[in-house]
Amino acid sequence: MNIDLCLVGIGTGNPDHVTRQGVQALNAADLILVPRKGAGKADLAELRLQLCGALVTNPATQVVGFDMPVRDADDPDYPAAVHRWHDAIAEVWLATIRTHLPAGGRVALLVWGDPSLYDSTLRIAERLAVQLPLKVSVVPGITALQALTAAHAIALNDINAPVTITTGRQLRDHGWPPSADTVAVMLDGACAFQHLVPEGITIWWGAYLGMPQQLCIAGPLAEVGERIQAERQAARAAHGWIMDTYLMRRG
Amino acid sequence: MNIDLCLVGIGTGNPDHVTRQGVQALNAADLILVPRKGAGKADLAELRLQLCGALVTNPATQVVGFDMPVRDADDPDYPAAVHRWHDAIAEVWLATIRTHLPAGGRVALLVWGDPSLYDSTLRIAERLAVQLPLKVSVVPGITALQALTAAHAIALNDINAPVTITTGRQLRDHGWPPSADTVAVMLDGACAFQHLVPEGITIWWGAYLGMPQQLCIAGPLAEVGERIQAERQAARAAHGWIMDTYLMRRG
Ligand SMILES: C[S@@+](CC[C@H](N)C(=O)[O-])C[C@H]1O[C@@H](n2cnc3c(N)ncnc32)[C@H](O)[C@@H]1O
Ligand SMILES: C[S@@+](CC[C@H](N)C(=O)[O-])C[C@H]1O[C@@H](n2cnc3c(N)ncnc32)[C@H](O)[C@@H]1O
Repeated sequence: MNIDLCLVGIGTGNPDHVTRQGVQALNAADLILVPRKGAGKADLAELRLQLCGALVTNPATQVVGFDMPVRDADDPDYPAAVHRWHDAIAEVWLATIRTHLPAGGRVALLVWGDPSLYDSTLRIAERLAVQLPLKVSVVPGITALQALTAAHAIALNDINAPVTITTGRQLRDHGWPPSADTVAVMLDGACAFQHLVPEGITIWWGAYLGMPQQLCIAGPLAEVGERIQAERQAARAAHGWIMDTYLMRRG
Repeated sequence: MNIDLCLVGIGTGNPDHVTRQGVQALNAADLILVPRKGAGKADLAELRLQLCGALVTNPATQVVGFDMPVRDADDPDYPAAVHRWHDAIAEVWLATIRTHLPAGGRVALLVWGDPSLYDSTLRIAERLAVQLPLKVSVVPGITALQALTAAHAIALNDINAPVTITTGRQLRDHGWPPSADTVAVMLDGACAFQHLVPEGITIWWGAYLGMPQQLCIAGPLAEVGERIQAERQAARAAHGWIMDTYLMRRG
């Protein structure tokens, strides 16, 4: 059983962020695996299915849901828990592929944003490669950071200057990274910007980027920081979940 | 005369990297401005025109070429020369818009990769806003970095770890940026990686990404660094131009 596994970046909520290459890859697949639940936000599972419904016109393509294993949140050893979780996801993929594509073929997986950015799909795919002959390919997709800069119509970098992309936890634990006057932050569940001395920093924040409920706030961190925290909390309460990201520049 | 100016990210050479939103934005435009020459590589001007030919189906959309002003390469004051060059480009845009869209309307500009990343189009658009009522919007596109990670089927970041995006000049002048064990380098005309101590560094290099002539080399920098320099030089001589980018990880 040979498997061609294609990871298709789908953007971050706007179905029109899918590229022509993405649409082709979905329609070239014999089997599209879609995480059904346990994947976090129910809206997003629904969004993936809608996307397949809208874009997959090849009648031979099977769209099959699978139940995402749940990570053991109580495990004090976080890296080990993530490792076991990725193992479990690889097992579910394998079982689903064996059931629906017993002779092998082309499998596509929808990946939020771009498969290269803070995403585990490539690492899980490596586990599969140990178990069967596997060829992995990647179709790039629009990231949350690009949705952010597009929504604000701003550049990521200053002219010829570096940019550091980091996580909320890194920013909280290590402060402003020394290499760059521009910092982009993802995976921040707790507004880590509040631990910075805000003077001289401008922030561009966005939540639900690319989606109908998109929110954007920009301004000097000293002036808008608290408003971002308040709006984030209110939006999260209203929708039951939130995904947000931001860019900051100093000097 | 009101102008809606839309900057459309078109990816880095693969016409199928255009998103559905990009196709819609091009077809919603009354006027698409395409740089005709002076924009550097002749192949790329041609590629933009082909892209318009393939994607623009709205008969009311005018596709108009304009001659890019040339930057004064002899000016010892580099920032001032760039500044004047951007002024000159804004003037040409304005004149072309006034000629072809005297009553105002929607204008689209094709931007290589994503308009947020090492690109001046947004800054030039700001100059236009001083001269006429202008609304600027951005359609994100696949960047060269995403084309690079997709071609190598690798992640940009280590798990939860930061990444710094920088230029060849920055890397040469300042060495490895202290904030991150992963560094992505763009705008490097002279293989700045050769000034690093290569031990412990892995490099993933790509040129002409997304194009038929795409080249990829990956491995320990100590082993593949010289090969990249040699292949880069040969490819550049063969094609008359090159665009390349790379990711390095240490530790
Ligand atoms: C696990 S990472 C995946 C990133 C994704 N691969 C990408 O390319 O954008 C999830 C993080 O991406 C950001 N994110 C994803 N979708 C978003 C959206 N629609 N609006 C704002 N932030 C988003 C948030 O920072 C979130 O914590
Ligand atoms: C002026 S910057 C524009 C970047 C573009 N806005 C983007 O999003 O990728 C040009 C640099 O992008 C990189 N680049 C652009 N297209 C490329 C390609 N097809 N292959 C490799 N590198 C490319 C090179 O590093 C080049 O020096």
